[in-house]
Amino acid sequence: MAYRATDKTRAAQAQRRELLLATSEKLIAAGGFAAAPVKVIADACGMSVGSVYSHFAGRADLLAAVFRRGADQELAEVRKAVEACESATDRLQAVVRTFAWRAIRGRQMAWSLLFEPVDPRVDEERLIYRRSYVEVTTAILHDGIAAGEFPAQHVDIAAAALIGAISESLAGRLSPVPVEATESSSDADIVDAILELCLRAVGAEPASR
Amino acid sequence: MAYRATDKTRAAQAQRRELLLATSEKLIAAGGFAAAPVKVIADACGMSVGSVYSHFAGRADLLAAVFRRGADQELAEVRKAVEACESATDRLQAVVRTFAWRAIRGRQMAWSLLFEPVDPRVDEERLIYRRSYVEVTTAILHDGIAAGEFPAQHVDIAAAALIGAISESLAGRLSPVPVEATESSSDADIVDAILELCLRAVGAEPASR
Repeated sequence: MAYRATDKTRAAQAQRRELLLATSEKLIAAGGFAAAPVKVIADACGMSVGSVYSHFAGRADLLAAVFRRGADQELAEVRKAVEACESATDRLQAVVRTFAWRAIRGRQMAWSLLFEPVDPRVDEERLIYRRSYVEVTTAILHDGIAAGEFPAQHVDIAAAALIGAISESLAGRLSPVPVEATESSSDADIVDAILELCLRAVGAEPASR
Repeated sequence: MAYRATDKTRAAQAQRRELLLATSEKLIAAGGFAAAPVKVIADACGMSVGSVYSHFAGRADLLAAVFRRGADQELAEVRKAVEACESATDRLQAVVRTFAWRAIRGRQMAWSLLFEPVDPRVDEERLIYRRSYVEVTTAILHDGIAAGEFPAQHVDIAAAALIGAISESLAGRLSPVPVEATESSSDADIVDAILELCLRAVGAEPASR
């Protein structure tokens, strides 16, 4: 059975859009948003600059779309890790470990998702992305307080604080510009330190760690 | 005694630059970076757009200069509050209270300094600004551990985490777009909750609060 021409065109369009997104993601994962000007993306896709603009209104739209894909994937991994756990303490640990280890292992991409100075359109996506993590954490804290794992506390503040704490404490490790450290540490030390601080911050029982 | 013409010109130049910075700051404090296009700034100063560009290479340079002024002032207030305290615990409380209360009281400016999506040049300043707060906090934590006020911990991570925690936990309060909250709170509740979380996070003795 033959497809109609419009279906074929639509499929080809979708395929080229997908190629643009996947190629941009690779470039960003290797050198950040700064390494992904439209001309470079177009060349890497074997497309003209003009045809990039037939898929995205501008570079900011393309980068924002790549950001959303990357961010959604990270968030999905965190949710998956959380769902595999029972207690609120274990779920909170899953958020910290998954977020931190994936960031350290995909360092350049994590830097770009979290910190790289870039177009305001991407910054807007960043605010939404952080809100999603705060929501995941809010639910865990409410459950943990109800179950007696954490003391009563201001859950909205605590959830936002944890996400700020995790992401900011990774900044030094992820930065492409070396940040002065007062002590040297392995990646595992960093993740353990973040985890310890987060559990202490919400008053998790040391015994349940 | 008469000034030479070049001195007069230089003084007039400096005065106009100062007028541009002060006027931009007022506009940003009222409506964020978004409320400060070059044309609006020029009009408010009674200057032409062209003459704005004789002082700053572009809007991003002007905004970055306004950011630095605002950020330096905030940081100076925090340092002053810290220097007025003795113990590390009190100094840490001074960081949290000064940062949080000044942000809540100068809400729009704080939103712009911390979160508003804006030109990458300003984002670069933001990274430097946050590093300065982390440095202030690192010194306090080292002193507090040496004095036995806080348990041994990874100081670089803890300092970055605290700054991330304070700033992210203010995001909901400062946002011009309402953020869904699971509980309602006064400004004082918010500041107390942030303070409690920060002290718990570094293991400060409840008694010394």
